[in-house]
Amino acid sequence: MSWFSKDIKTMADLFVHTLRDIYYAENQIVDALPVMIDKATEPRLKQGFQLHLIESKNQIKRLEQVFDMIDVDAQSVNCPAIDGIIDEANDIAGDIADKDVLDAALVAAAQAVEHYEISRYGTLIAWAKLLGRPDCAAILQQTLTEEKETDAKLTSMAKTSINRKAA
Amino acid sequence: MSWFSKDIKTMADLFVHTLRDIYYAENQIVDALPVMIDKATEPRLKQGFQLHLIESKNQIKRLEQVFDMIDVDAQSVNCPAIDGIIDEANDIAGDIADKDVLDAALVAAAQAVEHYEISRYGTLIAWAKLLGRPDCAAILQQTLTEEKETDAKLTSMAKTSINRKAA
Repeated sequence: MSWFSKDIKTMADLFVHTLRDIYYAENQIVDALPVMIDKATEPRLKQGFQLHLIESKNQIKRLEQVFDMIDVDAQSVNCPAIDGIIDEANDIAGDIADKDVLDAALVAAAQAVEHYEISRYGTLIAWAKLLGRPDCAAILQQTLTEEKETDAKLTSMAKTSINRKAA
Repeated sequence: MSWFSKDIKTMADLFVHTLRDIYYAENQIVDALPVMIDKATEPRLKQGFQLHLIESKNQIKRLEQVFDMIDVDAQSVNCPAIDGIIDEANDIAGDIADKDVLDAALVAAAQAVEHYEISRYGTLIAWAKLLGRPDCAAILQQTLTEEKETDAKLTSMAKTSINRKAA
């Protein structure tokens, strides 16, 4: 089933579908992170991925809370975007021999994931407010704040030790 | 061919592969935008997409300039991430009847595209600097600045007329 099916008639329908899209994405991220943790060698990076795995599991719980608040089933719809982003990350994990270069590539892959999430949560928050659900927006905002913090930490790592070692 | 193949041994190899990944992505975006322009109804959104098409063509020229500066062929490698993001955008274009809801969905899709680009250009700029090529970084920075401006304009549209009409 595609992200958008023909039963999307209103902004409320669009909100639910996008919520299901990011619900699928978060679950795929939780499945993908253990591989990235395993492949990462720089201790700060490994710890960063471990922390993000814990955060992602909590972000899934927040999404389930929002589904509950709007009284719809917590279901997934396929999200080709996150599948593609994770496919690229998996290619990295298997195809670079040098550990420092691999770490740099893992940071880049993780930032692509973060930016996808930042985009989707930003959209969902704007729509929740327009639909008169600031309560849902507030819960989603907690996750958006975490995602932006994670992206900033990855940027910091990319600019400092990891890339310098690899270069 | 995947984004990462086994010939990636150094940061310079990784830089070239990521440049080829975003080169593919920009070309896919140039192919996808005319459909989005056609489907968008809100005049500001339609104009925004038209402007972004012109910018994207110029961004491709900048990438070709960087390929030339580092003396490698301007080639593409498949980028499953952008393919997935555009697949979702195409689903929207075909599957929502209400024009205002469709406009809101198109803004969301365009923001997912922008965030992918922001992530990749940010990575490339960091790596270009580490590899001792601030000249390449400066050219890529021009594009990153444009992408962030486009994302900010889309956020402004999402929060104002388009979403309000659709809600």
